[in-house]
Amino acid sequence: MLTIIGVMGPGEGASETDRRLAYELGRAIAREKWVTLCGGRNCGVMEAVTRGAKEAGALTIGVLPGQDTHDASQYLDLAIVTGMGNARNSINVLSSHVIVACGMGKGTASEVALALKAKKPVVLLNAPKTAIELFRELDDQRVFIAGSVAEAIEHCRALMASS
Amino acid sequence: MLTIIGVMGPGEGASETDRRLAYELGRAIAREKWVTLCGGRNCGVMEAVTRGAKEAGALTIGVLPGQDTHDASQYLDLAIVTGMGNARNSINVLSSHVIVACGMGKGTASEVALALKAKKPVVLLNAPKTAIELFRELDDQRVFIAGSVAEAIEHCRALMASS
Amino acid sequence: MLTIIGVMGPGEGASETDRRLAYELGRAIAREKWVTLCGGRNCGVMEAVTRGAKEAGALTIGVLPGQDTHDASQYLDLAIVTGMGNARNSINVLSSHVIVACGMGKGTASEVALALKAKKPVVLLNAPKTAIELFRELDDQRVFIAGSVAEAIEHCRALMASS
Amino acid sequence: MLTIIGVMGPGEGASETDRRLAYELGRAIAREKWVTLCGGRNCGVMEAVTRGAKEAGALTIGVLPGQDTHDASQYLDLAIVTGMGNARNSINVLSSHVIVACGMGKGTASEVALALKAKKPVVLLNAPKTAIELFRELDDQRVFIAGSVAEAIEHCRALMASS
Repeated sequence: MLTIIGVMGPGEGASETDRRLAYELGRAIAREKWVTLCGGRNCGVMEAVTRGAKEAGALTIGVLPGQDTHDASQYLDLAIVTGMGNARNSINVLSSHVIVACGMGKGTASEVALALKAKKPVVLLNAPKTAIELFRELDDQRVFIAGSVAEAIEHCRALMASS
Repeated sequence: MLTIIGVMGPGEGASETDRRLAYELGRAIAREKWVTLCGGRNCGVMEAVTRGAKEAGALTIGVLPGQDTHDASQYLDLAIVTGMGNARNSINVLSSHVIVACGMGKGTASEVALALKAKKPVVLLNAPKTAIELFRELDDQRVFIAGSVAEAIEHCRALMASS
Repeated sequence: MLTIIGVMGPGEGASETDRRLAYELGRAIAREKWVTLCGGRNCGVMEAVTRGAKEAGALTIGVLPGQDTHDASQYLDLAIVTGMGNARNSINVLSSHVIVACGMGKGTASEVALALKAKKPVVLLNAPKTAIELFRELDDQRVFIAGSVAEAIEHCRALMASS
Repeated sequence: MLTIIGVMGPGEGASETDRRLAYELGRAIAREKWVTLCGGRNCGVMEAVTRGAKEAGALTIGVLPGQDTHDASQYLDLAIVTGMGNARNSINVLSSHVIVACGMGKGTASEVALALKAKKPVVLLNAPKTAIELFRELDDQRVFIAGSVAEAIEHCRALMASS
């Protein structure tokens, strides 16, 4: 099976930094020959990471909340259409070998929490101090902090090697 | 339709204080003639809140993660069997008029985040400072802090009146 | 726990006979002191069964497909809001002790099939011959045919007694 | 986006014919440069179709019911882990451009019904007469009968061309 890195992050509420990092993350994931999975919509971190990954030749999977693909990122190779709204956040994390949260929003926070609940490792990139503190308190074994895209990839590599 | 208060909180990881508060919360919800909804399992906050509510005459609904009722609280009147694991956390919050988080765990954090994403009001009772800070940062309009069960009920009453 | 009878049947496509039988079924379920569970929408068998049940004093639960209650039957006591579209059909059958299919549509057929897959007994009322034949072929142990509402209730009683 | 053909069929209950046809179907889908999506488990039609598709070079996606990949077909490239049991059947059909049902079981019948409910075209291959009759009665526009793998592929091609 192919290695799937789940990249989670804000949609409409993403900052410019979130989007820039997500784009770079997508490119870096492609260089590692990993598959990118995200929430699949045409905005914010979802669009940026799929654009970066696709431009650099990675396979991109979007796990969409809606009943169809009307709001899908144009950079998706594969649309998994759930019709389940944010209940699909659970699928995002269960399907990923490692989760990278890029930025932080309400949906992202739910995904980090669901990932830890499912004992999946989470790398936090550009997360606010408040998020780092809560999630480390909830699970001090599975939360990793990255100061850059390169560090996030380094964490993913180490986590894949030890799993 | 009946008014549903969703009480979310840790299962196996609940502290004694979490369980005591959940039990009192269940009793208080019953006095208000509200229905209690929770994750439905036979441990932690789920068991405690259903016990309190049931003893005081409230209807208790459990939205179970498993495929059957083998791990259901014995104090449930109605078991909604989802077979969806923690994806059911989204149902918990969408079905509740107000969500009260009693204590904080990974699943609880996912429910608070999903509730805010769905624009539902959340009352935090016995939450750690780290959770209060993150969730207030994510939504400064819909997060309410309660220092006691009485205050949590007061918040629910005010939220029901203004909705 | 309370006994839940799931009544499944067409929404917009329900015939007048389907709706009349569903209404009578709701009344009969109330007389047995059972709880009625259905898909919860304001049309077809869902509306009719909740109206009958509610008028005769039963508790009515609707497991809604949408993200909110805008299309809920006005006869619901409890709205379980799933936001999951027809994936909620699986919840309908897992949560019911016995499933009564009243009439037959695409959604109904999916619920009968999911019920049999989950080893739940199904009573078919006013089902077309084609449905009776397929579902009996798929499971000759768990499909029961009712020629009237009274017969459907009789099947439910016998199934509850033997479970 | 890549074209996804969903192949649904019995797991443990698959006949030898079902498995042989599923294997050939997988090979034929690969020749068309389509992606294969199925329920992903290591038995019956799911294993056979992924084996055929993978041997012939197609990308294979499995949408798994469990919380992890312990029962995944060894021929999967991508495992979408839902943790939702048979509620994932709805995702299978929403994510597929065309659904081919190969053989017929309880889960398969639920998928055909959910597909028709979602207005997706369904090709029936090796379906019993009872299934053909019910599903044609439920939707006489979207049910297509194939007498062979070649005919099933022909239907898929025509459906993709007209969509």
